[in-house]
Amino acid sequence: MYVVKSPLSEADLKTVSAALQGALVDLVDLSLVGKQIHWNVVGPRFRSIHLQLDGVVATARMHSDIVAERAATLGVSPDGRAGTVAAQSAVGRVPEGWVNDTDAVSTLVAALGAVITRMRERVEATAEPDPVSQDIFISITADLEKHHWMFQAENG
Amino acid sequence: MYVVKSPLSEADLKTVSAALQGALVDLVDLSLVGKQIHWNVVGPRFRSIHLQLDGVVATARMHSDIVAERAATLGVSPDGRAGTVAAQSAVGRVPEGWVNDTDAVSTLVAALGAVITRMRERVEATAEPDPVSQDIFISITADLEKHHWMFQAENG
Amino acid sequence: MYVVKSPLSEADLKTVSAALQGALVDLVDLSLVGKQIHWNVVGPRFRSIHLQLDGVVATARMHSDIVAERAATLGVSPDGRAGTVAAQSAVGRVPEGWVNDTDAVSTLVAALGAVITRMRERVEATAEPDPVSQDIFISITADLEKHHWMFQAENG
Amino acid sequence: MYVVKSPLSEADLKTVSAALQGALVDLVDLSLVGKQIHWNVVGPRFRSIHLQLDGVVATARMHSDIVAERAATLGVSPDGRAGTVAAQSAVGRVPEGWVNDTDAVSTLVAALGAVITRMRERVEATAEPDPVSQDIFISITADLEKHHWMFQAENG
Amino acid sequence: MYVVKSPLSEADLKTVSAALQGALVDLVDLSLVGKQIHWNVVGPRFRSIHLQLDGVVATARMHSDIVAERAATLGVSPDGRAGTVAAQSAVGRVPEGWVNDTDAVSTLVAALGAVITRMRERVEATAEPDPVSQDIFISITADLEKHHWMFQAENG
Amino acid sequence: MYVVKSPLSEADLKTVSAALQGALVDLVDLSLVGKQIHWNVVGPRFRSIHLQLDGVVATARMHSDIVAERAATLGVSPDGRAGTVAAQSAVGRVPEGWVNDTDAVSTLVAALGAVITRMRERVEATAEPDPVSQDIFISITADLEKHHWMFQAENG
Amino acid sequence: MYVVKSPLSEADLKTVSAALQGALVDLVDLSLVGKQIHWNVVGPRFRSIHLQLDGVVATARMHSDIVAERAATLGVSPDGRAGTVAAQSAVGRVPEGWVNDTDAVSTLVAALGAVITRMRERVEATAEPDPVSQDIFISITADLEKHHWMFQAENG
Amino acid sequence: MYVVKSPLSEADLKTVSAALQGALVDLVDLSLVGKQIHWNVVGPRFRSIHLQLDGVVATARMHSDIVAERAATLGVSPDGRAGTVAAQSAVGRVPEGWVNDTDAVSTLVAALGAVITRMRERVEATAEPDPVSQDIFISITADLEKHHWMFQAENG
Amino acid sequence: MYVVKSPLSEADLKTVSAALQGALVDLVDLSLVGKQIHWNVVGPRFRSIHLQLDGVVATARMHSDIVAERAATLGVSPDGRAGTVAAQSAVGRVPEGWVNDTDAVSTLVAALGAVITRMRERVEATAEPDPVSQDIFISITADLEKHHWMFQAENG
Amino acid sequence: MYVVKSPLSEADLKTVSAALQGALVDLVDLSLVGKQIHWNVVGPRFRSIHLQLDGVVATARMHSDIVAERAATLGVSPDGRAGTVAAQSAVGRVPEGWVNDTDAVSTLVAALGAVITRMRERVEATAEPDPVSQDIFISITADLEKHHWMFQAENG
Amino acid sequence: MYVVKSPLSEADLKTVSAALQGALVDLVDLSLVGKQIHWNVVGPRFRSIHLQLDGVVATARMHSDIVAERAATLGVSPDGRAGTVAAQSAVGRVPEGWVNDTDAVSTLVAALGAVITRMRERVEATAEPDPVSQDIFISITADLEKHHWMFQAENG
Amino acid sequence: MYVVKSPLSEADLKTVSAALQGALVDLVDLSLVGKQIHWNVVGPRFRSIHLQLDGVVATARMHSDIVAERAATLGVSPDGRAGTVAAQSAVGRVPEGWVNDTDAVSTLVAALGAVITRMRERVEATAEPDPVSQDIFISITADLEKHHWMFQAENG
Repeated sequence: MYVVKSPLSEADLKTVSAALQGALVDLVDLSLVGKQIHWNVVGPRFRSIHLQLDGVVATARMHSDIVAERAATLGVSPDGRAGTVAAQSAVGRVPEGWVNDTDAVSTLVAALGAVITRMRERVEATAEPDPVSQDIFISITADLEKHHWMFQAENG
Repeated sequence: MYVVKSPLSEADLKTVSAALQGALVDLVDLSLVGKQIHWNVVGPRFRSIHLQLDGVVATARMHSDIVAERAATLGVSPDGRAGTVAAQSAVGRVPEGWVNDTDAVSTLVAALGAVITRMRERVEATAEPDPVSQDIFISITADLEKHHWMFQAENG
Repeated sequence: MYVVKSPLSEADLKTVSAALQGALVDLVDLSLVGKQIHWNVVGPRFRSIHLQLDGVVATARMHSDIVAERAATLGVSPDGRAGTVAAQSAVGRVPEGWVNDTDAVSTLVAALGAVITRMRERVEATAEPDPVSQDIFISITADLEKHHWMFQAENG
Repeated sequence: MYVVKSPLSEADLKTVSAALQGALVDLVDLSLVGKQIHWNVVGPRFRSIHLQLDGVVATARMHSDIVAERAATLGVSPDGRAGTVAAQSAVGRVPEGWVNDTDAVSTLVAALGAVITRMRERVEATAEPDPVSQDIFISITADLEKHHWMFQAENG
Repeated sequence: MYVVKSPLSEADLKTVSAALQGALVDLVDLSLVGKQIHWNVVGPRFRSIHLQLDGVVATARMHSDIVAERAATLGVSPDGRAGTVAAQSAVGRVPEGWVNDTDAVSTLVAALGAVITRMRERVEATAEPDPVSQDIFISITADLEKHHWMFQAENG
Repeated sequence: MYVVKSPLSEADLKTVSAALQGALVDLVDLSLVGKQIHWNVVGPRFRSIHLQLDGVVATARMHSDIVAERAATLGVSPDGRAGTVAAQSAVGRVPEGWVNDTDAVSTLVAALGAVITRMRERVEATAEPDPVSQDIFISITADLEKHHWMFQAENG
Repeated sequence: MYVVKSPLSEADLKTVSAALQGALVDLVDLSLVGKQIHWNVVGPRFRSIHLQLDGVVATARMHSDIVAERAATLGVSPDGRAGTVAAQSAVGRVPEGWVNDTDAVSTLVAALGAVITRMRERVEATAEPDPVSQDIFISITADLEKHHWMFQAENG
Repeated sequence: MYVVKSPLSEADLKTVSAALQGALVDLVDLSLVGKQIHWNVVGPRFRSIHLQLDGVVATARMHSDIVAERAATLGVSPDGRAGTVAAQSAVGRVPEGWVNDTDAVSTLVAALGAVITRMRERVEATAEPDPVSQDIFISITADLEKHHWMFQAENG
Repeated sequence: MYVVKSPLSEADLKTVSAALQGALVDLVDLSLVGKQIHWNVVGPRFRSIHLQLDGVVATARMHSDIVAERAATLGVSPDGRAGTVAAQSAVGRVPEGWVNDTDAVSTLVAALGAVITRMRERVEATAEPDPVSQDIFISITADLEKHHWMFQAENG
Repeated sequence: MYVVKSPLSEADLKTVSAALQGALVDLVDLSLVGKQIHWNVVGPRFRSIHLQLDGVVATARMHSDIVAERAATLGVSPDGRAGTVAAQSAVGRVPEGWVNDTDAVSTLVAALGAVITRMRERVEATAEPDPVSQDIFISITADLEKHHWMFQAENG
Repeated sequence: MYVVKSPLSEADLKTVSAALQGALVDLVDLSLVGKQIHWNVVGPRFRSIHLQLDGVVATARMHSDIVAERAATLGVSPDGRAGTVAAQSAVGRVPEGWVNDTDAVSTLVAALGAVITRMRERVEATAEPDPVSQDIFISITADLEKHHWMFQAENG
Repeated sequence: MYVVKSPLSEADLKTVSAALQGALVDLVDLSLVGKQIHWNVVGPRFRSIHLQLDGVVATARMHSDIVAERAATLGVSPDGRAGTVAAQSAVGRVPEGWVNDTDAVSTLVAALGAVITRMRERVEATAEPDPVSQDIFISITADLEKHHWMFQAENG
């Protein structure tokens, strides 16, 4: 049986791997929600939001790959399957169908807000057990908070 | 209320939009399954399959964007949310945890095979109602069948 | 005298060359109208539409070159001169002077709609006589319909 | 109503905007004539002239965009529609149908010559009223005269 | 023994694989003939034809790879060996030694003409059995007919 | 002591160096004001104006470097320090804090307008003493007036 | 009124926003001082220092943008106007006029040293309140200290 | 005599510089061992491991440069000479001669494991004295642990 | 009749042109055999060998062009037609049909070995008569021997 | 006989063509002198001046091509042969052999100074007869004066 | 006084440095002659030869830099000044004024032929004294002979 | 046991492999020494020499890879481990600690000189046994001697 000897203690590994698996699910879902609204947004600001969402999707895809490979690096199998994502994501279910541009902005403000809250908890939780993973969560939080600002500014 | 006047008759639109929505779900799931195994594969052929799967993911992501935007173009809202994907995908549920390299190849052969079967039906179904959408399904089938060959050849 | 021996029968060639010449005129005019509004649009959405129109112009220029060279390939001299374009285009005459952004969107929705209708007829007309030319019309239709969606979505 | 406050006096603006509108029409037509012969040229020098003409078209398109946006910058709506171009261009009507390579060269020598003559008048007319616009006309003249030389040299 | 389960019926597969194998042989030979004349052409138009032939070779190499991999994708072993090419190609044997530029153009007009005739038959033959392969033959025909036009135009 | 022997007479040099120093201060301040609003703009048009302002900043930075190095070239030490910029700029002080998108556009229209007025005076003042410096001022004016148009058009 | 709900407590936000605003002012001034000496340096090492300073300017500009957008992200309006920079910067006023190369090196050693001291205080001050901002200050310190070493080494 | 005034206290500097010098030696040796096996590996997986090792070498070279320049930045002379590396590296001596692919993987698992252990100690040791250096060690550990996972996965 | 005055004596030319013609045939055949196995290889190492063979094909194509143009440069018409290649190549006939990965490696070891033997003879034969051609043969041998090593190492 | 009908009067053409021919000779010689010192400079500043001179050579080559083609454009044959350059250049003969770095700087200051003096006369002489050529001389003067400043600053 | 200790004996150095200096002069002159005809060629093949000559100029400039720096490397000052080139070049004086395309080809055939003859002598002369310099002469000869073939082929 | 059948006789192989192994050790050490001084150099010329040394390191790394893979190609295991390099290199031990710029130049002149001497012996020793390896040694010598010149010129 395949076993990677983790550089972390068992207790630390438990904390860190929970944080990584949670982040993976949130980020995969964020990438799917970002695309969903990329396709369904309508209204005078269609083009601007359509393009802006591809930036969110690119961020979410890049970081989901990093956290999943970090889990594997620590010897923990990551789970990013559709069913797992649907069941465990913090993003919240977005309604089906067309979305007008103002609602699209609000949806992203809410979705990013929910993911950021959990990501900041992960920054804190992993500080002691694994500063390497913490550094990844810090980078993710920085990128998501920047996207969050931009959507909030559009409501300003 | 937002309405795009479709260039297709109502009956044709029903056929074509069902085909596009089905393809969207299959392709999004294929991209998630491709990443899942990209992260979880182990064994002597790890590196080769790990890289090969990024090709599958890139193909699936590119075409999922094309079919979703084609649906929007015809005035039909596409649905690529995690829950929808988990419920409707043809790919089939892959097991959690590490996957040895031989099983990884078999999983992809099966997953691609299932998607290709449905994609060929869409090529046929859309030939009359909308040759523009059919042309998209032909391109997708060509790309997926090429990936299918490569995984089969590895079992040869 | 210069004669290219066409691979098509005379009757088929007549059908196909009429389709190609018609598409050439429509596409050249679409590129000119796209630039006209690119320069004359005003209003809060100026920058977004100004940029979006360069995408339409690039599409129209690329495909006008393809259909003209396809005509030459079949031994038929293409005609894309200003006078011919002004006389035969399906786009319809756009008014001179500044255009506010909402009118700019409507103008493009109408212009693209008119060209698409004729392009879909060409897809049908050339299916039997020359599948190679038909494939070109399918690609053009796909691209124009995508632009059409985006302008319609901005009215959503 | 939309008004850009021009930095020029009314009399100067009249001179400069006439020069810009005239240049726009000439350059758009030059781009259409360049493509027309790009598609219709035949003869032993086909490939060389076919490629050379894409250089003329690129020059004409680039500068037509610059003069149109300069007009808009000065608060004057530019007009580059097919009908306007057909009615006002200095290029002269080129015959329809195939053109042998020697005639293609002569046509370009004549077309460029006609546009250059008018462009040099614009350099002179705008020197006092608007040195910024004059600088644009100087650049255009430089580029067109270089193309002119190359076609003349081919007749040498 | 290695067996790829083809998505086609046995009868359809026979038709399609014959078309693919025939196209492979024609395209490999076209690439060799293109290079042969690229090296052996002499005369005032040497440089132009020398460069033009590299375009033909690039087209032929790209499409030979696509048709061979399409055959493998359908479970049929492609054969592009020198002996097979020499025995089965439609291109016809070109004479050894230097070729003056006018003869070079005529040779290419003939070679491309012969391959195009067979390629159009393949477009027709594969329409029903496998629209995916047909789409490949349509693309190849489009590219070869464009090269064909350019060499014919040089004889104009 | 370091002395560059200027190619200009003392009187001409005085005129030209005053123009260059004035332009340097205006352009550095324009780059700082452009960034200030890039960071502080809010409202539905946030993203569009945020991006548009990076274009203004890039223009201002590029030209500030050119005029400063031109001064050095003529043997005159350029002064682009924060205190000098704060004291001598034509741009005018922009208020601190968030700026809604409509006010942001107005601020840029005013700021660009003020700089352009002074830049046109420099074009005139340097025509006789140093056509090389004049040519630089013409290029700057052309670029700033184009930005000016775009912000004005957004108020149209 | 526009309010971004900050993820930080009020006390933490006060600490962090003071650090970000201070860093913004220092970095903008460093970019202006860097350019000032880039233009005014003379002496045998002119070219080397002239080029080296563009590296400092690029670093300062990149990080000033990052800290300003981080402030906005936390809901705090950044202030990078010339007057603010002139009043609050740690860099210290550099003399006007030409600078010989040895003095230029010393000026940079002093300027970078002053900014680094304050930046290290910010690293410490933000560790608890906001590790995301702290990570930004760590990166800035790393880059500035590397530049500091290089100018010190030139005095070695 | 050349002295860089370090921003750290003497005690902190001693800790940090020991960590940097140790990391330098380990990383230089890792780059040499990576190349040694890149050249000497044999077996069915030759090509895959040969390529994979160039990734390890690139990582090791990039980070060895960063830690050496960080030492210099803190005023401590780095030592990366062959004799020093041979004497002090944690990597362990690899045998001379050909290495079969399975042994190559094991050698890298061991070498990376040894370096990672020491690198994690450096992360801890430098947290208080110098968070800037710590951040560098965190990045190095992240990269090395990712390589470590990939070689372990190949043994899975 | 076309005659290039060769810089070599008649005897030397005979030796050198025989070497170049022989190399041309070997290299064209190597490119065809490389592609043949690229398409037909199966087995667990499929992907690695499939990619590796494209490197061989690129090498063979690049050098076949160089030797053919070198022959033309010396006034000798090169012959790279399919029939000539089939008749004169040193590579040896490879069997039709699928090839498992181990056999594919062996086939390449043999094919490269045969070509290298002849290429080393050409290095020797041309040393005196034409060091320019010899230098080409040395480069070819270096590249082919490197490929040879890599395939042998996979059998190690 | 080949005659280009110049857009200038005979008298104007005489003035302009003398200016262009003089500039051509100066610029070709500057490129040769720049390379001569690029190869022969020695001393502690070797590397810096060696690189700086490639910038001068690139400028001189680019502008020599522009003025020669401008002459041809006006129907006047340009003469840039070595003998003509040696006889007519303003640069002055530089001594053979090694040049220490201080002398190299002085040589360039003198050479650039001599060329600039004549180039400023050409700016003046061509203002009336041909503003298009004048614009070229203005650009050349701007570039050469910038190089002149940099070499002077190194003597500062 | 500056002395590079050459790795060659005095006698060998004399031979090699004479060869390098001779090659430098020939190559600089070839670059000047290539440009001279690039500007002065007229006739139906103008464009093709105009472009082809830029290839010759690029080759000549690249190799002149290599041989001059090789001389410096051996401690011998290279001389590429206009007067030296005019006096010592093997190329032969080309007439002033326009050149028709056929004469242009003949001039290049002659010029390249003359340089190649001397270059082959240098290959022979340097074989014993300095194989490093010989290798440079072999590369130059290969490139020049390829250009020579292409111009000869145009006369074929 | 792994055996590559070398194309060389046993005696020749012994000579060539000794040369390759010696070159490998020298080049690896040169890359380490180059980096050592890249990090430790101080003085007014710091930046210039710091950059120049990266060129030496790039050269040394590139060629060390080439000679090691050449040894493997001939069936001889290369040894580039730190201990081997420390024991066998020709470069000579450089002192630890900071190096002022003048000493840095002298160190490189000496190090390159020592390696070049041995490399020229290898050029001679391998001429008969293996011209392919000799060609590699000639390229290495050319590159090292060029670096040697540049450092010597800085002492001029």
